[in-house]
Amino acid sequence: MESVLAGLLPAPELAPQRLHKAMRYAVLGGGKRVRPLLAFAAAELTSAPARRVEIAASAVELIHAYSLVHDDLPCMDDDDLRRGKPTCHVEFDEATALLVGDALQTLAFQLLAHQELCDAPATQLEMLKHLAIAAGSRGMAGGQAIDLDSVGKSLSVPELEFMHIHKTGALIRAAVKLGTLCGEKLDKPGEAALEHYAKCIGLAFQVVDDILDAEAPTATLGKTAGKDAEQNKPTYVTLLGAATARDFADELHHDALAALEIFGERALRLRQLADFVVKRQY
Amino acid sequence: MESVLAGLLPAPELAPQRLHKAMRYAVLGGGKRVRPLLAFAAAELTSAPARRVEIAASAVELIHAYSLVHDDLPCMDDDDLRRGKPTCHVEFDEATALLVGDALQTLAFQLLAHQELCDAPATQLEMLKHLAIAAGSRGMAGGQAIDLDSVGKSLSVPELEFMHIHKTGALIRAAVKLGTLCGEKLDKPGEAALEHYAKCIGLAFQVVDDILDAEAPTATLGKTAGKDAEQNKPTYVTLLGAATARDFADELHHDALAALEIFGERALRLRQLADFVVKRQY
Repeated sequence: MESVLAGLLPAPELAPQRLHKAMRYAVLGGGKRVRPLLAFAAAELTSAPARRVEIAASAVELIHAYSLVHDDLPCMDDDDLRRGKPTCHVEFDEATALLVGDALQTLAFQLLAHQELCDAPATQLEMLKHLAIAAGSRGMAGGQAIDLDSVGKSLSVPELEFMHIHKTGALIRAAVKLGTLCGEKLDKPGEAALEHYAKCIGLAFQVVDDILDAEAPTATLGKTAGKDAEQNKPTYVTLLGAATARDFADELHHDALAALEIFGERALRLRQLADFVVKRQY
Repeated sequence: MESVLAGLLPAPELAPQRLHKAMRYAVLGGGKRVRPLLAFAAAELTSAPARRVEIAASAVELIHAYSLVHDDLPCMDDDDLRRGKPTCHVEFDEATALLVGDALQTLAFQLLAHQELCDAPATQLEMLKHLAIAAGSRGMAGGQAIDLDSVGKSLSVPELEFMHIHKTGALIRAAVKLGTLCGEKLDKPGEAALEHYAKCIGLAFQVVDDILDAEAPTATLGKTAGKDAEQNKPTYVTLLGAATARDFADELHHDALAALEIFGERALRLRQLADFVVKRQY
């Protein structure tokens, strides 16, 4: 994924150079690449050609990267550490970071429109639609807005879940969906099972994020630990306590694995990713 | 266009409400709608169905609106007046304005992917590609980056033109292109003539913007006048002087009209828009 993304981002020598350097800085050299890995793992269910999955996975990862750059800006989370490096606006400047996020989002849609991703342009439009809905005001950006509004408030667990289904979950579900759309069509039960898997994994990812933010050291995380408590944000740890939050993550893990049973051996990578999402230390 | 955009934007009652209200605030109730008008005028050359042009024109206008919201932020131009109203981050807050811009960009691509815009999905992908390239780091966002780098520097006229071809020109060209793609295919000479027209109009638009920024009062402009001089930005007025800048705009106007000759009467609206772009007072 690192070399794929490096090849798809504008070259650093290309004008405007500072913007292109900053775009590469924000995307390359770090990140767990969970969304691309999910796209590849899901693509194994539909025998999708690798090059197509590379493009689709990159588009999803670019949306994720843009959201991190904007999320770290002073007017949002005001963070200066990301993936163990200074955040984009610290390394460059705020205006450049703003444009980096903007241009990374555009590039994501450009990739999906430009490259041949499947056998039918109509399916390709469907991929674009899925990514746009996942990223927009009823998906990731909407989740961010709910997050903003929730600072200093006490949410219920269902309200917290609603926020995360949008903020993190939508893009994770899109990664899985786009991966499968690069190949042969899944049958309806397969589609439904995979959607359930993606939903569980998306939520588990956030529950574990909350646990790690409360418990892991900054050096392991590669981003500032303890930000949630410092910013008085409701999390699964503050609402449920650490032990119950861990139980919830384990339950989602179990549900995700159960949903994969109908796929048999072809879901090996998806199972491994479910394990990683729940057991990761960073 | 006002009612079309109002219908395509998420309803204000829909969650997250504050974000959706802010998105509507940023797009509705103002704006010259030059890009949509250009899309409609160009669509008359290819007998495109009105509903399709409405969607394509809206997508272009949403990209324009997002760029204004981000451009007005404190870390960019730091402006508090736009279309005679407080800018989005003044009326709401910076974090919301950041998300508004992000979500408006996403919505633009969602519209082009979602709706039926032409008779072939492959052509629709081409429209998406055109808009993405026009908006991205080699188009509008790239032009903004060059603009940032040029503050306080002395540019040559060709360097200034290079900046504006990206910052303003790319999206204006995309508006014309998308309008025609909604209908029957243009022949090659027609395509080339229309591209030349769009290039001239895009540049003329910026030259006139520079003249108005230097000469028109804030009340007429609906945005803060004299910002370029205050921010020490190179403009056509500072580089050429007001009289020569006006001559340059007239020359571009003449070239734009000449390019339309091969279309005869069908280019009436495009001619009227060329007149408006050069003769406007705001």
